Amino acid sequence: MKETSPSRPDRSYAILGTGALGGFYGSRLQRAGLDVHFLVNSDYQQVCQSGLVVESVEGDFTLNPVKAYQDVRQMPPCDVVVVTLKTTNNHLLPQLLPPVLKDSGVVLILQNGLGVEAEVAKIVGDDRVMGGVCYIGSNKVGPGHIRHLGYGEISLGDYGPDYQPQGITKRMVQIAGDWERAGITIEMATDLLLVRWRKLVWNIPFNGLSVVLDARTDEMMASLEIRNLVEQLMREVVAGAERYIPNSFIDKMLYHTEKINPYNTSMKLDYDRGKPLEVEAIFGNPLRAATSAGADWPRIAMLYQQLQFLNAKKMAEIAKFT
Amino acid sequence: MKETSPSRPDRSYAILGTGALGGFYGSRLQRAGLDVHFLVNSDYQQVCQSGLVVESVEGDFTLNPVKAYQDVRQMPPCDVVVVTLKTTNNHLLPQLLPPVLKDSGVVLILQNGLGVEAEVAKIVGDDRVMGGVCYIGSNKVGPGHIRHLGYGEISLGDYGPDYQPQGITKRMVQIAGDWERAGITIEMATDLLLVRWRKLVWNIPFNGLSVVLDARTDEMMASLEIRNLVEQLMREVVAGAERYIPNSFIDKMLYHTEKINPYNTSMKLDYDRGKPLEVEAIFGNPLRAATSAGADWPRIAMLYQQLQFLNAKKMAEIAKFT
Repeated sequence: MKETSPSRPDRSYAILGTGALGGFYGSRLQRAGLDVHFLVNSDYQQVCQSGLVVESVEGDFTLNPVKAYQDVRQMPPCDVVVVTLKTTNNHLLPQLLPPVLKDSGVVLILQNGLGVEAEVAKIVGDDRVMGGVCYIGSNKVGPGHIRHLGYGEISLGDYGPDYQPQGITKRMVQIAGDWERAGITIEMATDLLLVRWRKLVWNIPFNGLSVVLDARTDEMMASLEIRNLVEQLMREVVAGAERYIPNSFIDKMLYHTEKINPYNTSMKLDYDRGKPLEVEAIFGNPLRAATSAGADWPRIAMLYQQLQFLNAKKMAEIAKFT
Repeated sequence: MKETSPSRPDRSYAILGTGALGGFYGSRLQRAGLDVHFLVNSDYQQVCQSGLVVESVEGDFTLNPVKAYQDVRQMPPCDVVVVTLKTTNNHLLPQLLPPVLKDSGVVLILQNGLGVEAEVAKIVGDDRVMGGVCYIGSNKVGPGHIRHLGYGEISLGDYGPDYQPQGITKRMVQIAGDWERAGITIEMATDLLLVRWRKLVWNIPFNGLSVVLDARTDEMMASLEIRNLVEQLMREVVAGAERYIPNSFIDKMLYHTEKINPYNTSMKLDYDRGKPLEVEAIFGNPLRAATSAGADWPRIAMLYQQLQFLNAKKMAEIAKFT
């Protein structure tokens, strides 16, 4: 991979949330010669002193110096504001986005779950939002220290009012070009909502059950009962999705999951670390969308209830000690 | 309570399984003057040396001596053989029952769940089986040491082929008399299957969720989400039950559960102690009965899948260390 590009593009990037996703993708973009500004929370001192350490199956590197900030008001307005916060912090977006977004800029939501683009559109306008779904194995393993285990592809889609399909847009092609230059595979998707629902087919069963059952993907797939339950949950997602997803996609997801290495889901990692779970983005919002469209989701609703309980209990336990 | 009865009855009792239930009820019967023989497993030495220690809200006592046995072939054939084993040991019943049951005797199943009487009838005959459901808070807290926290009532029913209601039978009245003399409240039920399904309305949600969510009754009732889920699970039970249960029974159960002290279910205690869970008796058998009668039980089926996974995982972990 080239360290710099001969024709350095003008587009500047702000990364809101320098964790497993933002730290990895932002570092790659900067290494490719782009101008990247990182909003860093608890790791700020570490990142200023030692940079961002990225251990990656595609080659380790340390990004240093890093343009790190603790406050968006000190960041320059950027062309692309990439939101890689956990959705549990999205109540902060009305404060975070306006100072860092150029008038001609766009917000790119790289979060899990459903409905965030519509929320962000209320802040910045319908025509300044894009979304993407990341297929990546990446964890933050320490302050300013990212471990990239594999994959990294992003399905990128443009947002329009009520998630009407936008096709392939000019800014999508431009942004995809930047990321491809950074070595990230981009699928340009004509329909962002389809992209989001397809990811939910996997995220709903595996993220949810991994927490409730305290289990890795391989343990779930090895159990006949849980494999059946995963498939039933996937069928509920497909039946209630706001876009058509063929049933064959379920078989593909199951096959794919059996092939990957034993894997702790992001929700399981959050739970084990005492972080709040992305219950509303991944479960609550899809459930409300599917239910109001007339779908019957008894199993997903039950998983949502179980996760709400476990999340609240864990948060209450942690509050005792802080 | 009288220590002995002036007219000592002839009926002899065998207690198969001297744990939380068998230890408590058997001790009470012996204290009331009945001839009681206990099959004791791991606590045999302790019980022979120091008797059975019963700490009870109704008064502590120690039963000593205890007619304890390690092998049914050394026990005398008895009039009433009370089965208080965990259902996970029921594969032993074909060996355990015949030596200890008098030709004129009856087997009384005091286990949770569904379908055990029909299994036992295949061993001893349709006309020699009764069943009961215990409403008791009782734990084994150490070898030969029972702690009775409250309640103790038994709903007693006679068994006939295909669980046809048998009404109040003569032997039921006689046995109820023995137990009442021992200070145990007996409800004589005309329909054993109704008794079993009513207990399942409580056992299915609370036993199941207590394990999956690692929670006491009070924690589950305090959560709006789980309280709703409990009610949904109860509605599934009622809708799929083989007997009519009015919906008002659900409100009664919820009200009752809110009134009781914070409580760890028997299944939760088993799980925490690394004992196999009574998954088939409490979930598998009712699910198969309800499903073959055309009921739709998505939530209970999911709980059953989750419990099978957790039970198998725990058993595998324990097998590593023994």
